[in-house]
Amino acid sequence: MNKRIHQPPDALRAPRFTGPRTFARLPLTDDLADADCAVFGLPWDGGTSFRPGARFGPEAIRSASSLLRPYNPAQGAQVFGALSLVDHGDAPTVPGYFEETLERIERFVAAVVAADAIPLGIGGDHSVTLAELRVIAAARGPLGLVQFDAHADLWDSYNERPLSHGTFARRALEEGLLDGARTLQVGLRGSLYGADDLGVGSRFGVTQIGCEELLAMPAEQFGERARALLGDGPAFLTFDVDFVDPAFCPATGTPEVGGPSGREALGYLRALRGVAFAGFDVVEVAPPYDGPGQATALFAANVLYEMLTLVALARR
Amino acid sequence: MNKRIHQPPDALRAPRFTGPRTFARLPLTDDLADADCAVFGLPWDGGTSFRPGARFGPEAIRSASSLLRPYNPAQGAQVFGALSLVDHGDAPTVPGYFEETLERIERFVAAVVAADAIPLGIGGDHSVTLAELRVIAAARGPLGLVQFDAHADLWDSYNERPLSHGTFARRALEEGLLDGARTLQVGLRGSLYGADDLGVGSRFGVTQIGCEELLAMPAEQFGERARALLGDGPAFLTFDVDFVDPAFCPATGTPEVGGPSGREALGYLRALRGVAFAGFDVVEVAPPYDGPGQATALFAANVLYEMLTLVALARR
Amino acid sequence: MNKRIHQPPDALRAPRFTGPRTFARLPLTDDLADADCAVFGLPWDGGTSFRPGARFGPEAIRSASSLLRPYNPAQGAQVFGALSLVDHGDAPTVPGYFEETLERIERFVAAVVAADAIPLGIGGDHSVTLAELRVIAAARGPLGLVQFDAHADLWDSYNERPLSHGTFARRALEEGLLDGARTLQVGLRGSLYGADDLGVGSRFGVTQIGCEELLAMPAEQFGERARALLGDGPAFLTFDVDFVDPAFCPATGTPEVGGPSGREALGYLRALRGVAFAGFDVVEVAPPYDGPGQATALFAANVLYEMLTLVALARR
Amino acid sequence: MNKRIHQPPDALRAPRFTGPRTFARLPLTDDLADADCAVFGLPWDGGTSFRPGARFGPEAIRSASSLLRPYNPAQGAQVFGALSLVDHGDAPTVPGYFEETLERIERFVAAVVAADAIPLGIGGDHSVTLAELRVIAAARGPLGLVQFDAHADLWDSYNERPLSHGTFARRALEEGLLDGARTLQVGLRGSLYGADDLGVGSRFGVTQIGCEELLAMPAEQFGERARALLGDGPAFLTFDVDFVDPAFCPATGTPEVGGPSGREALGYLRALRGVAFAGFDVVEVAPPYDGPGQATALFAANVLYEMLTLVALARR
Amino acid sequence: MNKRIHQPPDALRAPRFTGPRTFARLPLTDDLADADCAVFGLPWDGGTSFRPGARFGPEAIRSASSLLRPYNPAQGAQVFGALSLVDHGDAPTVPGYFEETLERIERFVAAVVAADAIPLGIGGDHSVTLAELRVIAAARGPLGLVQFDAHADLWDSYNERPLSHGTFARRALEEGLLDGARTLQVGLRGSLYGADDLGVGSRFGVTQIGCEELLAMPAEQFGERARALLGDGPAFLTFDVDFVDPAFCPATGTPEVGGPSGREALGYLRALRGVAFAGFDVVEVAPPYDGPGQATALFAANVLYEMLTLVALARR
Amino acid sequence: MNKRIHQPPDALRAPRFTGPRTFARLPLTDDLADADCAVFGLPWDGGTSFRPGARFGPEAIRSASSLLRPYNPAQGAQVFGALSLVDHGDAPTVPGYFEETLERIERFVAAVVAADAIPLGIGGDHSVTLAELRVIAAARGPLGLVQFDAHADLWDSYNERPLSHGTFARRALEEGLLDGARTLQVGLRGSLYGADDLGVGSRFGVTQIGCEELLAMPAEQFGERARALLGDGPAFLTFDVDFVDPAFCPATGTPEVGGPSGREALGYLRALRGVAFAGFDVVEVAPPYDGPGQATALFAANVLYEMLTLVALARR
Repeated sequence: MNKRIHQPPDALRAPRFTGPRTFARLPLTDDLADADCAVFGLPWDGGTSFRPGARFGPEAIRSASSLLRPYNPAQGAQVFGALSLVDHGDAPTVPGYFEETLERIERFVAAVVAADAIPLGIGGDHSVTLAELRVIAAARGPLGLVQFDAHADLWDSYNERPLSHGTFARRALEEGLLDGARTLQVGLRGSLYGADDLGVGSRFGVTQIGCEELLAMPAEQFGERARALLGDGPAFLTFDVDFVDPAFCPATGTPEVGGPSGREALGYLRALRGVAFAGFDVVEVAPPYDGPGQATALFAANVLYEMLTLVALARR
Repeated sequence: MNKRIHQPPDALRAPRFTGPRTFARLPLTDDLADADCAVFGLPWDGGTSFRPGARFGPEAIRSASSLLRPYNPAQGAQVFGALSLVDHGDAPTVPGYFEETLERIERFVAAVVAADAIPLGIGGDHSVTLAELRVIAAARGPLGLVQFDAHADLWDSYNERPLSHGTFARRALEEGLLDGARTLQVGLRGSLYGADDLGVGSRFGVTQIGCEELLAMPAEQFGERARALLGDGPAFLTFDVDFVDPAFCPATGTPEVGGPSGREALGYLRALRGVAFAGFDVVEVAPPYDGPGQATALFAANVLYEMLTLVALARR
Repeated sequence: MNKRIHQPPDALRAPRFTGPRTFARLPLTDDLADADCAVFGLPWDGGTSFRPGARFGPEAIRSASSLLRPYNPAQGAQVFGALSLVDHGDAPTVPGYFEETLERIERFVAAVVAADAIPLGIGGDHSVTLAELRVIAAARGPLGLVQFDAHADLWDSYNERPLSHGTFARRALEEGLLDGARTLQVGLRGSLYGADDLGVGSRFGVTQIGCEELLAMPAEQFGERARALLGDGPAFLTFDVDFVDPAFCPATGTPEVGGPSGREALGYLRALRGVAFAGFDVVEVAPPYDGPGQATALFAANVLYEMLTLVALARR
Repeated sequence: MNKRIHQPPDALRAPRFTGPRTFARLPLTDDLADADCAVFGLPWDGGTSFRPGARFGPEAIRSASSLLRPYNPAQGAQVFGALSLVDHGDAPTVPGYFEETLERIERFVAAVVAADAIPLGIGGDHSVTLAELRVIAAARGPLGLVQFDAHADLWDSYNERPLSHGTFARRALEEGLLDGARTLQVGLRGSLYGADDLGVGSRFGVTQIGCEELLAMPAEQFGERARALLGDGPAFLTFDVDFVDPAFCPATGTPEVGGPSGREALGYLRALRGVAFAGFDVVEVAPPYDGPGQATALFAANVLYEMLTLVALARR
Repeated sequence: MNKRIHQPPDALRAPRFTGPRTFARLPLTDDLADADCAVFGLPWDGGTSFRPGARFGPEAIRSASSLLRPYNPAQGAQVFGALSLVDHGDAPTVPGYFEETLERIERFVAAVVAADAIPLGIGGDHSVTLAELRVIAAARGPLGLVQFDAHADLWDSYNERPLSHGTFARRALEEGLLDGARTLQVGLRGSLYGADDLGVGSRFGVTQIGCEELLAMPAEQFGERARALLGDGPAFLTFDVDFVDPAFCPATGTPEVGGPSGREALGYLRALRGVAFAGFDVVEVAPPYDGPGQATALFAANVLYEMLTLVALARR
Repeated sequence: MNKRIHQPPDALRAPRFTGPRTFARLPLTDDLADADCAVFGLPWDGGTSFRPGARFGPEAIRSASSLLRPYNPAQGAQVFGALSLVDHGDAPTVPGYFEETLERIERFVAAVVAADAIPLGIGGDHSVTLAELRVIAAARGPLGLVQFDAHADLWDSYNERPLSHGTFARRALEEGLLDGARTLQVGLRGSLYGADDLGVGSRFGVTQIGCEELLAMPAEQFGERARALLGDGPAFLTFDVDFVDPAFCPATGTPEVGGPSGREALGYLRALRGVAFAGFDVVEVAPPYDGPGQATALFAANVLYEMLTLVALARR
C-alpha cells in the first residue's frame, strides 16, 4: 500500500490567510501512520525565569507558518510534497505543575517516536526539551545535540529548584540523555552569574562556541565542525530563538543583545546537512512580546522549515 | 442511527491554550452530516472603505473563542454538548476580485445550507453578508433581518461601484433577498453624507432604530418589538461589531464613537429569543487594529456564542 | 461677491484614506478670507506633568478626522457644506521654551481672530488654552468658559513654576481673561494634593460640577444650567479628553479612571446649543499612548465635529 | 515615641515621573515598625489557566501608581499623610513550583501580619490570595470575604490538579480559612463548564451576586448588604480586575465581556466603608496584554488607593 | 521666467512635527508646472495575498518623511532646494475593484508624465507598479527595470486570477512594458511554490540576483553591473520593502526572513548613480504591522529620499 | 573601615522580576559614601526636536536592567561584586523649563562628583549631557569626549533658541567644557540641513568618524585611535542610542536608518578600554516608541553595563 503524502493545500487556489492555523496549513491529525515527520506544540512556560508567554508560541508560529511554500531554493530541496507531514496538535500541559507537565509531554512525544515519525516540537520554554530528550534517548540511547542558544542552560538550579528553562541541558547531561562529547552549544553570550559559569560545559565534555567565535566562522566550516563532532549517531537539534539578536527575535523570555542576524542564523542552520537528527525543536517564542508584524514567530516558522528541509535532504 | 454530538474537548483536562485554534476548539471538518450548526470563516476585506484587515477576523475570533465554556448562565442554556457543532473552515476568497469572491462564498455557504446545518459566518467585512443572504434566500425565500450596526449600509454606491461593505443591505433589498417590512436595523449613529441618507430605509420599508432610541429601550422591550416585526418567517441576524462603542470593539474598519457598551449590546442580542433565525454572522473585526488583549475578537466570539445559544433555546 | 464654501471632497468618489491628512480633508490654507471657522494645530507638550506626546495630537486627530461625514444626525444639522471651513496648519512652537511657545501661539491665533474666523485649536497640552484665551479675551473682553476636564487646572504652580497644563485656568483667571462667574468646570474627579484644592474654584467664583454630580444630571438639564450661567456673552469651550474615562480616551497625559463614557460625553457637549462660543479647543491627546485603533484621536475628531455643529446651529 | 508617617514625596516639587517606581513613590523598606499598611507584590502567574503575565503586575501597578495624589475627594478622606504607608517589596516566588511559591508568600506575608501592618497584596494571579488567607486566618480565625470577580474560583480542580487561579476560593473554604456564611462573591458572569457550577457556592454557604443583579443595585444598597453579611468580624477584600469589563481592564488572564464599567466598579468598592478588613489584594493584572496607555494597571492602582482609603476612614 | 523651486520649510524655525503631513513637508499641489519631480500616493492593497494595510502606506511614509533634511552627505548632494519637488496627493483608488483602480492610477500618473515631472509613487501593494509602467512605457517605450524585492512577482496567477501583487512583473513583461533584457531583479529569497519558479525569469530574459549572491557583491560592483545591463535607455526603479529583512521593515504584506540590513539596502540603492530612471516607486509598506516607532515607514521615506538624490545627481 | 560593596541580590534565589525596579536591582540610596559609581536618571525630554518620551527612559532602562548578571565574559570582568554600585534616583527636572532643569541636574550631579563616585546618567534627551559636562568640567577641567551618535549635535540653534538636544555639543565646546582636540564623534550619518553642517566639527577641532568609515574599521583599531586621541586626561563617554540602527533601537527621538547593528555597537564600546572616563551617560531612549519587548531599553541597559565594565577594568 502506498503511503499518503500529507501536504498543505495549494495556496495559489485558496489564499494563505484562509482556514484554521495548523502548521503550514498541514492536516491536523492524531493518525501518524503515513507521517515522515510530526509537528506539534509544547505549550508550557512555567520554566521561564523572566518573561512568560511561550505557552502561546505554538499558536503564533502556526499562524506565521502559513507563509511557507513547498520548495526551499536555499537548499535546492522540495519540502512539502516530498515529505509526508502532519500537525499533531499540542501536548496537554498543566499550568503551575512542572513535573506533571514534563510527564505529559513525554507520553505525548513517545507516541510520535513509536510511530516512527520524526518529532518537531514547537515550544514552549526550553525546559520542554528535557522531556523530548528523555523520550528519544530512551529509544535511541544517549544523543548528540546541537543547541543554538545565547545561554548554555547548564545552571545547577534556579531559586533552589532543579527544573527551569535555564537548567535543562544540565539535567539532560546528568540523566545521561546526552553524550557530552557529542554535545555542541553555539551562540553563547551575555552576562553570567560568575566566571565559574564558563567552566561548567567542559566539566561535562560539552563543546561550546561563543557568539563572536561563531560569527567569525563561515557557515560551511561550522557545518563541517558539527558533522565531525556529532558523527553518525543520533542527534537532536534545539533552536532557542534568543540565539538571534532581539532585533530579529524580540519575543523571547530572556533576550540577549549582540546576537547574530536572522540571515546569519539561517546560514548556520542550513550548514547542518548530513547530521543524523532524530528530533528537533524551536523554543522560547513568547508572542506577547512580539511586534504587530510577529517577526519572531515568522522567524521560528522558518527555522522549522529549515529543519524539515534537513530531513528532506537526508531522505533523498 | 444516533447523531454524533460534536463539541469541544474538556478544558479542565487540557488547557484552553492548547491545540490549533478552531472555533471554540470544535472539530474541524467538511462533513456536516451530524452538524446542527456550522461555524465558518469568510476572510474578505476588499469591500471595506477605510481600514482593511477583516480577512484576519476568522483567525482572531477563533483564537479568542477558546475562552468559551459549555453552559450560558445568562440564558440558562446548555450550548456545547446540547448542539452538535463543527468548524467548517473558511471560504476560498480571491483578494482584489469582488464578484468572484462573492460567488465562491455563495458556493461555500450553499453546501452548509444543503446539509441542513445552520450557518454562522465569521467575517470579513459586511459585504460577505450579501453572499450569505443570496444562498439562504434562494432556499427559504425573502428573509427577515436583524442588523446590529452603526451604519445602515444602504448607500447606493461607493466610488461609483455597486459592491462595498456600505451597500450590502441596499443590494440585498434590491435583489429581493430581504423583506423590507421584516428588516430591522438598530444602533445607527454617526455622521452621514447628507440628510437624504435618513430617508433611504423607509423607502425600502425598513424599520430603523437609532442608537439613542435603542438605548432608551429596555432589552426585553426590544425583543418584543423584534419578534412582532419579524413574525414566524425565516430571518437572518447580522452583527457588525461597529455597533458597539470603539472602547469595547476598537478593531473594526469604520468605527463610530458614542455607541453601546458591550454589556448593553449583549443584552439586546439575548433578548432575540424566539425569532426564527436561519443564519447568523458577525462581521467587521479587523484584528490589526485590536489591542494586545484582543478585546474585539473576544467580544465577537461571545456574540457567536450568544447566537448559538439562541439556536439552543429554539431547539429545546 | 459670494463667499466660497470650503468643504471636504466627496468621499463616495475618492476613498477617505486618500490624500494628505488635513482636518476632515479640508483645504489647507493660510487664506482665511472665506472661512467661517479655522481649524489648526497647537503642537506643544512641554507643559505636561506626566506623559508627553500631545505635540503629535494634531497629526493623529487630523488622520482620524477623515472618517467624518457632512451631516450630523444627532443635531439634525448640515456641517460641511453649510459652513466654510479650512485647515489653517499649525502654530510654530518651540520645544523646551514655554514662554516663547505661548507667544508664537498667540501671534498665530491672533491672525485667525483678526480674520473673523472662529478658532478651533487642536492641542497640544492644556497650557495652549492660555494662549488662545489671551488672544480672544484681548479682542472680546473677559470670557465665559465651559471646561470639560477631570482636573480643574487651578493649581498655583508645578515644580515651583507658573506655567503648566495644570495651572492654565488659574493663570487665565488671574490675568482677567476669564470671568469667574461665567466659568463652568465639569467632570472633575480623581485624587487631589489636599482638601484645600477643593476650595480654589470658589475663591475665583468658578462653578464646578464633579463627575458624579454631572452624570446624575440629564444632558438637557446640563445644557440649561450652562446657558443660564454663561448668558449671552462670549465664551470659550475647552475639552480635555481626560474628561472621558480612559477606556474611551486612553491616550492622554494624566488619565483619571472612573469617568463618563464617550456617549455620555457627547451628550453633554451636544446640549450646549445656544451658548455664544467665540472659540473652541480639544486638548491632551497624546497619540503614543493610543491603541492601534487610535480611539482617542477618533473621539477627539468627533468632539471637534460637534463643536463645528454648534457653530452651524448658531448660524442657522 | 512618635510614629513616623511614611508618605510619598511632594509631586509639585519633583515630577511624578521621577525616581524608581515604588507604590505611589512610597519608601521601599523592610522595616514595618511604623507602617499602618504595607503594600507588596506577589509576582506569580503559574496558576493562570489562559494568559500568563501577572508576574509583572506589581511592576506595572507600581508604575501607574505614581499618578495617585494624597487626598481622595470621592470619600472625603486624606490618605497619604494620614496613614503611614510603605512599599515592602515583593515576595520571592519560584517559577514553575506552585507549592514552594505559596509557602514563600506565606512566610513573606506573615512578617507583615506579625508587624501589625495591614497587608495589601499586588498580584500575581488569584492563587496568591490563598497564601494570604492562610496567614491572616492563622492569626485572626476564619475570615469574611468580599470578592469582586467575574468568576467564583470555586472549581474543584484544573487539569486534575488542586492549585489554580480558578480554585483558590474552594481551597480556602475547604481549609476553613473563610467563613462561608460571611463570604460574598460579586460580579459573576460568563460561560460555565455546566449548570452544576451554579450550585457550588451555596453548598459552601457562600452568597453570590451575579453581574446583572449587582448592576441593578445602587452602590449604597450593596454596601449595606455587605456590612450586614460580614458583620464586625475580620474580613478580606480581594479584587480580581476581570470583574471589570475588558474595555476598562483588558490586561487580565481570563477576560469576560459584559462587565461593569470602571466607574461602576469604583462605586461598589467605595460603598464598603465600615467593613473590618484585615487585608486586601488586587490580582490578575497581566501587563503584556495592556495597551500603551496601561489602563488596567492604572485602574488597579486606583483600586489599591480606594482600599487604603477604606483603612483611612476606619482609622478616623 | 524662472522656475520656482518648491522645497520644505526651514525645520530650524518651525519644528518638523508641525503642519499636515505632506511628503517631506513639501507643498501639496496639483500644479506641476514647476516640478522636477512629483511624489504621490497609490493607496491600494487589494492585490496583496496575505496582510493588507498598504493603502495606509502613503500616510505613514509622509508622516515619517518629516525627519528628512535637505542635504544628503552619503552622496554629497543637495536634494531639497536643488530640485523643485511637490507632493501631488493620492490617486483615487476603488476598494475591491482591481481593474478600475489600475485605470484610475494610470490616468493620475499620466498627468504627471505629461507635465514632464518625474513620478515617484508611494504604494500601495506592488500591483500599482503595473499601472505606473503602463503609463511611462506608453510615453517612452519598453523600459528597463531595477526591482529590489524578495519575490520576483512573476507568478502567472493567484487564485486563478491575473492581477495580484505577485504577478505584476509577469504582466508587465507580457504587455511589453518592460524589456526583459534590461530587467534586473535583486534580493530574491524565500520559499517557492516549486523548483519551476526558478526558471520563469530566464524565459523572459530577466536577470535575477538572489539575496545571498547580492550580499556577496560590494555595492559599487552591483552599480556597475546594473549600469552595464540597463545602458542609457529609460528605466524604472521599484523598491519593495520586503527586500529588506523584517527586523528593519516589519510592516509589509509578505515578509521574508533572512534579508539584507537597512544599511546594506541603502548601499545598493545609492550605487545606482547614472542609470536613466524615468520613474520610481516604493511599495508594500503596510503600517498596521509597524511597531510604535514606525521603522518601516521611516525606512521607506529614506528610500524615496535616495531616489530623489539619484535625480539630483543626474541633473548636476 | 572597610568599604561596603553594594551589589544586586542573588537572582538565583529571588527571580529577577521581583522587587521595585532600581538599576540592576541595586540598592536605592542617597548615601554615596561607599559607592564607586552612582547610576541615576535624568528624566527630561524638553529638548527633543521630534518625538518626546525620553523622560520615561530611566524607568524603562531600570526595568530592562534586571536581566543583567554580575560577570561580563566579553571583557573577562567581574562587574557586580567587584565595584560598589548604587542607584541614586533621579534628578528633579521641571517640565517646560529648560534652564531650571539644567540647573537642577547640575546640582544633582555635583553631589555625585563631590562624593567621588563616577556618575552614570540615564537620559533623558541629549541636552542633559550639557549639565553633566558642566559639573564634571568644573571639577576636572576641559574634558575629552567620545560621542556615539548619528548626529553631531553641533547645530547653532533650533527654532532660534540655544538649548536643544541638537545643540548640546556646540554649547559644551563654546563653554570650554570640552577640549575640541580630544573630542571624538562617531557614527554620524543621515541627511543634513546643508553641506555647511559638515564643516562645523573641524572649526572646533573635533574629530568626526562617519558611520560608514567607522564600520569599515575593526573595533580594536577604533579603540587605539580613541586612546591616541584622548590620551590620559579625563574624558566623558556619551552614548545616544540613535547611533544604532532603528531595527535595534527603535525607541528614540530622531531615528536615522542605516546604522550599525547592536553587536557592532557593543564591539566599539568594549574597545574603549584604557580611556580615563570620569563620567558616562546613555541618552535618547523614548520608551513609548519601543515595541512590546522593549528592545531599546534592554540595549541601553547593556550599554550602561559595558560602561560599568570599563570602570571595573580600569580599577583592576
